[in-house]
Amino acid sequence: MKGFKYEDTVNRWGVFEAELMGPDEGNPFTEQSVHGVFNSSEETVECEGFYDGDGIYRIRFMPSFEGMYFFEITSTFTDKKTGSFFVLPARERNHGPVRIKDTWHMVYEDGTPYYSIGTTCYVWIHQPDELIEKTLQTLSKSAFNKIRMCIFPKHYDYNLGEPRSYPYEGTPVDSANITRENFGEYTGKTEGNSWDFERFHTPHFRHLEKCICELEKLGIEADLILMHPYDRWGFSCMGPEDDDRYLKYVTARFSAFHNVWWSLANEYDMMPAKTLDDWERFAGIICDNDPYQHMCSIHNCLRHYDYCRPWITHCSLQRNDLYKSSELVDEWREKYQKPVVMDELGYEGDIQHGWGNLTGEEMLRRFWEAACRGGYPGHGETYLHEKDILWWSHGGELHGESHKRFAFLLEILKQTPGSGLMPYPGIWDEICAVPQETVRREGVKDYYLFYYSFMRPSFREFYFDDDSQWSVRVLDTWNMTIEDRGIFRGKFRIELPARQYMAIQIRKVEG
Amino acid sequence: MKGFKYEDTVNRWGVFEAELMGPDEGNPFTEQSVHGVFNSSEETVECEGFYDGDGIYRIRFMPSFEGMYFFEITSTFTDKKTGSFFVLPARERNHGPVRIKDTWHMVYEDGTPYYSIGTTCYVWIHQPDELIEKTLQTLSKSAFNKIRMCIFPKHYDYNLGEPRSYPYEGTPVDSANITRENFGEYTGKTEGNSWDFERFHTPHFRHLEKCICELEKLGIEADLILMHPYDRWGFSCMGPEDDDRYLKYVTARFSAFHNVWWSLANEYDMMPAKTLDDWERFAGIICDNDPYQHMCSIHNCLRHYDYCRPWITHCSLQRNDLYKSSELVDEWREKYQKPVVMDELGYEGDIQHGWGNLTGEEMLRRFWEAACRGGYPGHGETYLHEKDILWWSHGGELHGESHKRFAFLLEILKQTPGSGLMPYPGIWDEICAVPQETVRREGVKDYYLFYYSFMRPSFREFYFDDDSQWSVRVLDTWNMTIEDRGIFRGKFRIELPARQYMAIQIRKVEG
Repeated sequence: MKGFKYEDTVNRWGVFEAELMGPDEGNPFTEQSVHGVFNSSEETVECEGFYDGDGIYRIRFMPSFEGMYFFEITSTFTDKKTGSFFVLPARERNHGPVRIKDTWHMVYEDGTPYYSIGTTCYVWIHQPDELIEKTLQTLSKSAFNKIRMCIFPKHYDYNLGEPRSYPYEGTPVDSANITRENFGEYTGKTEGNSWDFERFHTPHFRHLEKCICELEKLGIEADLILMHPYDRWGFSCMGPEDDDRYLKYVTARFSAFHNVWWSLANEYDMMPAKTLDDWERFAGIICDNDPYQHMCSIHNCLRHYDYCRPWITHCSLQRNDLYKSSELVDEWREKYQKPVVMDELGYEGDIQHGWGNLTGEEMLRRFWEAACRGGYPGHGETYLHEKDILWWSHGGELHGESHKRFAFLLEILKQTPGSGLMPYPGIWDEICAVPQETVRREGVKDYYLFYYSFMRPSFREFYFDDDSQWSVRVLDTWNMTIEDRGIFRGKFRIELPARQYMAIQIRKVEG
Repeated sequence: MKGFKYEDTVNRWGVFEAELMGPDEGNPFTEQSVHGVFNSSEETVECEGFYDGDGIYRIRFMPSFEGMYFFEITSTFTDKKTGSFFVLPARERNHGPVRIKDTWHMVYEDGTPYYSIGTTCYVWIHQPDELIEKTLQTLSKSAFNKIRMCIFPKHYDYNLGEPRSYPYEGTPVDSANITRENFGEYTGKTEGNSWDFERFHTPHFRHLEKCICELEKLGIEADLILMHPYDRWGFSCMGPEDDDRYLKYVTARFSAFHNVWWSLANEYDMMPAKTLDDWERFAGIICDNDPYQHMCSIHNCLRHYDYCRPWITHCSLQRNDLYKSSELVDEWREKYQKPVVMDELGYEGDIQHGWGNLTGEEMLRRFWEAACRGGYPGHGETYLHEKDILWWSHGGELHGESHKRFAFLLEILKQTPGSGLMPYPGIWDEICAVPQETVRREGVKDYYLFYYSFMRPSFREFYFDDDSQWSVRVLDTWNMTIEDRGIFRGKFRIELPARQYMAIQIRKVEG
């Protein structure tokens, strides 16, 4: 069929894409539309297509089941297209989109528990090819399975350069004279930008989706930050119609990627031009236009959003206190009754800003605290660099110490029976995690993970019951060693090396 | 005069003591009393005497002024005694009792600022002579200028032995079978004690006052803990008449020592037998019987006492949170409008309990945080010891790292213009201390002490005004180095070594 293409097989949770040729005159972004209905014996899904430049329109669909699918595609510019395709089993390592389980935890759609170990590289996709390649190499060797990243470029300390491309047709303000001394004068309201907010610059979005696909290959969720305040180009203060058009375009374009998450904003409360009504309207657009209901949240600076709102799948939190971050996960679990993802625990590094100069030890400590309290930690790194390439924004290479130890944490987390950990209440001088499932049962649990944080006990004493046998392993979370201490019964004592960052894993021996 | 002795000179803020012989039959503690009135051109002071055994009664007085004093001493057992003595200038290093200044700070009565650097050795006075001597040697080499210590012996983990003496005539419960496993069964209500609460065991108190005098020679305030819950002998649950008699005896005996502070209790809220009315009555007895109005407080475990009560001179706080301790000094200064003494910030050590296994680094960090927020830090140490000699209780030797660095802190604090520091409000990623006096002046201050705690900035930038000149010193609070960086003006940048525990001291250059 001339001007209409699609593949007739696709893997479960892969991307089915149909391409239609259509008009490139006028403004295809505002004047044309494409709509699809996808049918199988298991589901019916409707979704929107998008214009990709050069007269090419695309519509994408993510099948959630195996087997035969039929589709009907209608548009403002051509006759109805129908067809079918066959959905094969998921590719190895594709477990489907991340979903909520047991109120506070996450699993992939195929049931595999998802222990989020996140990082932040706000504008890694906006960098030159070589640096992007380096970022992907770094990620491939890491334990990270989620990354926070912006669609719009970033203007901030250490982020004064131009991005590789812009999301709109037009020209940016001249940035030749920006320095660290005057960068604060360049804001989203800066004069001198000239954008057509009705025409997306499609190479920018094609590049972004290439990056999303590269992350997918690495098993990494792409937590897409849709808006943010650190802007000199005016993308943070577009009008409501422009905002809404942008969100519809983004959801039409990216929803079919199983590894996409939506983050309405980084630091929504630093964007005074947007009201609460705006954010709620944005959330409505996303929910209406994302048929797969991907993970969706909004990230705070000083004030939490109301994470109880029904469209929010999980808390995406930045710490509000210089001292306590992960330590408050218990509280927020109770308050919001949702998974608590600590997306900003502070950054390991040595820059001048207090949020960006934690030691590796402290970052790792915050990771374990978050995980053992039944939350999910997020990393970032801000070491001074001769070329101002800081992982937190630009990606590249990691220079810190904490990240080397996340695979060890992840390995231990994956040993949790069930979908995730919960904090055992009422204990004050150690952190005790038990499987979430066991909360419903009174009495002794089958599995305990004790974490000692900055404390340095020389020993600890335990008593669960008189009869059970308990297998005990001592974990050094910094040095990544595991010592099997054997089987114990009744009241027992475990010697420890009086070092920080130790943990004890205790499992009931069956039978 | 037969049976009546006193010295006719004494130093200002020293102890004048008159000794009277009287009856030793019956119960002199309950049946006899001694009362004195001390007069000079500057003050008139009334106070009570006490029975010291063997027919000896004593009355003590601390003159607050130099010059001639006259006295009249009356008693239930002999005729009125009168006389006079001459008060010489204070001995070198005796600056008088500690007083409150500028709401949140402390000065000795002669006006010298008092920067409290406390420690805790609960029952060091109850140990054998050799260990007491070792404690005094350790103190003499330390920066400590306050010590928390109990009049009653202590029963607790690592504190299972008998004290060298008891405060009452009688016999204690047999403790031969106490072990770490069963010590919790021995409480203040334990059967088997046999005490006459109407007869003080005077050698116990003579020994205590000898220890107070030794501390005085070292320039150390004796923060006397009058009651506490960690007891198997029943001293924590005497009846009201016994409690009151005890407090009258203690105040009569010790008030004349200029370096005495009163702490009504350690962990008052762990003593359920005492009501709020009891504590308030106790406070009344102390205020009525201490003519010098020594520093007076009460120490919490889980719940703060109402430190706004008028008899309380200062907050004597134990941290209530595993993570935040000194960091809350700002809040408590505002709440209570009194000096905030962080008497328990946790303990440096390696025992099993979470309150007793901090690193030296963390203890020192808490010290600097407390001091830079305009509070006063307190130390303690709980390292495992082959003979269970832990500084926190027994004194002896220090094994930790933090204490070696307190003299450096004290030296810096003494450089503060005026009586003490206050926290500069509204700064979130550094701790900024300025002299308390400057709070009343708007605008730029003359002196700033910035502390970076666990953060590791590679540099910091400053701007106070265009014209002043600023002398800048970089302090490494752990390695105890001071680097003079020279004089700066306008906007300036100070390089830092990207290590934890750094501080910057900035002083306006006059003229």
